[in-house]
Amino acid sequence: MKKIYLDNAATSNPKPPSVISAVNNYLQNICSSPGRGGYFLGLEAGRVVFDTRQKLKQLFNAPSEEYVIFTPNVTYALNFALLGVLKPGDHVITTSMEHNSVIRPLRYLEQTRKIALNIIQCNKKGELDPEQIKKAIKPTTKMIIMTHASNVTGGIMPVETLHDLKEYTDAMLVVDAAQTAGVLEIDFKKLDLDFLCFTGHKALYGPPGTGGMVISPRAAKILAPSVHGGTGSRSDVELQPDFMPDKMEAGTPNTAGIAGLNAGLNFILEKGVENIHQHEMQLTRTFVNGLQQIPGISIWGPKDMDKMVSTVSITVEGRDLSELAFSLDADYGIMIRSGLHCSPLGHKTIGTFPEGTLRFSFGYFNTEEEVIYSIEALNQLTAD
Amino acid sequence: MKKIYLDNAATSNPKPPSVISAVNNYLQNICSSPGRGGYFLGLEAGRVVFDTRQKLKQLFNAPSEEYVIFTPNVTYALNFALLGVLKPGDHVITTSMEHNSVIRPLRYLEQTRKIALNIIQCNKKGELDPEQIKKAIKPTTKMIIMTHASNVTGGIMPVETLHDLKEYTDAMLVVDAAQTAGVLEIDFKKLDLDFLCFTGHKALYGPPGTGGMVISPRAAKILAPSVHGGTGSRSDVELQPDFMPDKMEAGTPNTAGIAGLNAGLNFILEKGVENIHQHEMQLTRTFVNGLQQIPGISIWGPKDMDKMVSTVSITVEGRDLSELAFSLDADYGIMIRSGLHCSPLGHKTIGTFPEGTLRFSFGYFNTEEEVIYSIEALNQLTAD
Repeated sequence: MKKIYLDNAATSNPKPPSVISAVNNYLQNICSSPGRGGYFLGLEAGRVVFDTRQKLKQLFNAPSEEYVIFTPNVTYALNFALLGVLKPGDHVITTSMEHNSVIRPLRYLEQTRKIALNIIQCNKKGELDPEQIKKAIKPTTKMIIMTHASNVTGGIMPVETLHDLKEYTDAMLVVDAAQTAGVLEIDFKKLDLDFLCFTGHKALYGPPGTGGMVISPRAAKILAPSVHGGTGSRSDVELQPDFMPDKMEAGTPNTAGIAGLNAGLNFILEKGVENIHQHEMQLTRTFVNGLQQIPGISIWGPKDMDKMVSTVSITVEGRDLSELAFSLDADYGIMIRSGLHCSPLGHKTIGTFPEGTLRFSFGYFNTEEEVIYSIEALNQLTAD
Repeated sequence: MKKIYLDNAATSNPKPPSVISAVNNYLQNICSSPGRGGYFLGLEAGRVVFDTRQKLKQLFNAPSEEYVIFTPNVTYALNFALLGVLKPGDHVITTSMEHNSVIRPLRYLEQTRKIALNIIQCNKKGELDPEQIKKAIKPTTKMIIMTHASNVTGGIMPVETLHDLKEYTDAMLVVDAAQTAGVLEIDFKKLDLDFLCFTGHKALYGPPGTGGMVISPRAAKILAPSVHGGTGSRSDVELQPDFMPDKMEAGTPNTAGIAGLNAGLNFILEKGVENIHQHEMQLTRTFVNGLQQIPGISIWGPKDMDKMVSTVSITVEGRDLSELAFSLDADYGIMIRSGLHCSPLGHKTIGTFPEGTLRFSFGYFNTEEEVIYSIEALNQLTAD
């Protein structure tokens, strides 16, 4: 039986061969602590890390390399932004399409730091009206945080409208690019963001254990570190250094993963973000068109290729979703996810809580044939 | 020129070939999100993570798999223990031989949560008198935290005396095993610890980006999460789940690294911790004996093979240490570290602050010939 991986919104699979060989090469030939040993291999490890920062700076148009910070995954980046900025009494605006990596730390801060939280309700398609954000702004608004694209519907949020809000507020502007870094063009400086949080192991094609954030100079000034420890810098002092990126990067980093991420970034910079996106949206278009011919299938989200990335959530009338996911895997070799995808609020918004959805998410390595095979599989399964 | 890596206290190099091929195999053939997709590969990823928990449970005699928690490195584990337990007014006892991964979060908590800190002064050899810990105990003592072995001198701390303190205090007992996990036998239950923090990429022979902690049932009850987000569990709720290990593990873990750590643990369990230790101490003995024949070299620390692990710190009278380190690398191919090794307090204790030391640290793959060559190199260099 053929095997078709359609869970790229969780992690991309396969990885480009260059990513796997970069990790292998690092573990085989370098494998030293960066910035800690002055010998050749230690410097080489430091060079891998710095070169990856430079590539991320290029991809996202970051203000400088020092404002590109590595974290273990995007969840840590989002937590570092929230926990490192918000203080008691601060007001935060977010949306009802967020992942639990935003909602859970915010709920925690509501309980422990008495922040005030305003969750803007999106419509049944998961779409956000930017006017609602503007209306919610208060003098105490310290942060506006939203996902760039929903991991449930694939719907793209209007992050390009955020910088217009600077006329009305000094709030920190934070974007969760877990689902978009690598497939949508993101210009940090043009968007006028303060935090862009990204993961390495999804559409940047790096290994798990990688991710990070780009921050603005003004964010760098107020951001408190969440983890304290050895940085290989200012080892004479008993407090975390106050310069970036060391302030936010304690302990030995995942250098092998970063070496792989470097190769993933090369892959993207060579293919071109726009070309990757076009390919994925062609697959998504075929899939959505095919699904619309199958009776009993509901597609949740925008259903408009200009308003979404390559993630499609569906339900099937009268059918148990986890049973369908099991059959797709066991009988057709199609790997997808069923359930809530760590976004209970998103499902409440679109009306699929608590059952959730079947989620199909396409990556650069998927083909038109795989999509057609998947439509055929759904056709057969739902006809049973 | 031959290349000799003697910086195993920073990270072990080389990694066993099985570790590199396990990472490779994971990235090539599995590469799915554990606990998030119900399909075969997702379950396989979950199995790798669970199997590694089981091996760590076995190695450290942990209370159960659920109390083995993965973190990105030992620094995160120590921070999670400190930040997740300590509250304003709590008193903490630690030692003057700690790494900045303990001292920096404690200094931060002094400033931000008004904890009271008692740093027990060790003697000039870096040795701790356990009586001093006992004398420092107060009714408000919430935690006693110490390294298992200094990363500067290699000196082993009397962690086996900690459980005697339970007669006098309910304080949480925390051990930083960064330098010992994999080379000294550690029995979590026998030592009666509450937190054992370890790294994966040193003597456990795993890749960078791995580490974790073993916690006691009573620690599990009070430990607050430091990072909040998706766990693949209780996705219907907007707060972090309150059960272990999910409570402490948010976002996609470094599964490729964990697969490598699994192979590293197999390597250790096959070789036997005691055999690895014996080999490393034989090398250390040869090195220390050789050094004692070289005029002008001072060895800092216990100099007693029963009281140390395979890390040796030296200074050379009248010589600049970073120049010596550079020559060892450039002229002899010997990779070591000079400086403070992220432990300013340790150097102040033994009297080598702020210049630091040259640190040589041996691993399982080093040989007697390499040690003799290194002694000869130091002989030549110091005679210049």
